[in-house]
Amino acid sequence: MKYPQHLLQLFQALKKLPGVGTKSAERFAFQMLAWPEKQLREMARLIETLPEKLAHCEKCGCLLDEKACYFCESSEREKESLCLLASAKDVFALEETREYKGLYHILGTLLSPMEGKGPEHLGLERLKQRITALGVKEVIIALDSTLEGDATALYLKKELSNLDVILSRLAFGLPMGSSLEYVDGGTLTRALQGRRSF
Amino acid sequence: MKYPQHLLQLFQALKKLPGVGTKSAERFAFQMLAWPEKQLREMARLIETLPEKLAHCEKCGCLLDEKACYFCESSEREKESLCLLASAKDVFALEETREYKGLYHILGTLLSPMEGKGPEHLGLERLKQRITALGVKEVIIALDSTLEGDATALYLKKELSNLDVILSRLAFGLPMGSSLEYVDGGTLTRALQGRRSF
Repeated sequence: MKYPQHLLQLFQALKKLPGVGTKSAERFAFQMLAWPEKQLREMARLIETLPEKLAHCEKCGCLLDEKACYFCESSEREKESLCLLASAKDVFALEETREYKGLYHILGTLLSPMEGKGPEHLGLERLKQRITALGVKEVIIALDSTLEGDATALYLKKELSNLDVILSRLAFGLPMGSSLEYVDGGTLTRALQGRRSF
Repeated sequence: MKYPQHLLQLFQALKKLPGVGTKSAERFAFQMLAWPEKQLREMARLIETLPEKLAHCEKCGCLLDEKACYFCESSEREKESLCLLASAKDVFALEETREYKGLYHILGTLLSPMEGKGPEHLGLERLKQRITALGVKEVIIALDSTLEGDATALYLKKELSNLDVILSRLAFGLPMGSSLEYVDGGTLTRALQGRRSF
């Protein structure tokens, strides 16, 4: 007996989620089989209506809530700072710090030749226009501390250096609560290089 | 900025999947946000139509494909053997062995006082009637090798012992490809107890 066609299709769809392989997809699907119809309908509705319910701001790329951009349409955010992020998801992490009061700009991707993401995917012209139009004074590059994040940051640094803005990047160093014993060499090197008078 | 309401609802829905916590739910939801509308609609359709597309056989509890039970309606399956399983999912694992040619009976649950699953959830009367009606000669108990599986097997053994059938349970022992060094004591004990002349 083979898996019914419908189930196979659901496995395939679920496997497109990040980190979900065949076994997880099977577990998810069989769990759903045991759900009441109402719960399945609710899940389906939430997924299907994602595009209409959660559009992205055309200016900054952040998620819109109730069709309004929390940032671009606010008078309380400082227009002189622009924080560059890879994904709209990262906004929530930044906002949670309550440390940043400026605007955001979502690149949508990092440079990643492996995934076919080149400089043309970063929307550089749109970014430059926005920096000029807003009269931004500081651009904060807040990208992942990974190979792709580093490459993208370096590329942006080169491309934006001829604009009249201060360019900065998030600090590298020890994560809070870490003991030196367990911190990797690369992090420690960066923490040392970035040491500050105390 | 808080997460939009729709996103929070999707997180909650996704967290009902097995092994999915807050972080995974967020990753899944943000990944879906990047999916094309067509893919989201397809996923929603597959989930929403689960109940109508994948009903369970009223007799054995196995998943129906195209409204027909692969087992109950087949003339090629041996009606003398009945294999008791906890979930319709387990059928696929058993079938993959190509070792079993009899019929199945899905209990739907294991005994689990923690989850409020008592003997009344096993559908014992229906099982007994089916054993009699089919003229089953051997009942194979194929339940998990866990506390709940063991308890359920013992309970079934007691309840079915007055019927005129051979009762058996899957063998316990070394999994294939395991080295003794890494096998736990309980498994080794069971393997020793179940040793066979060679």
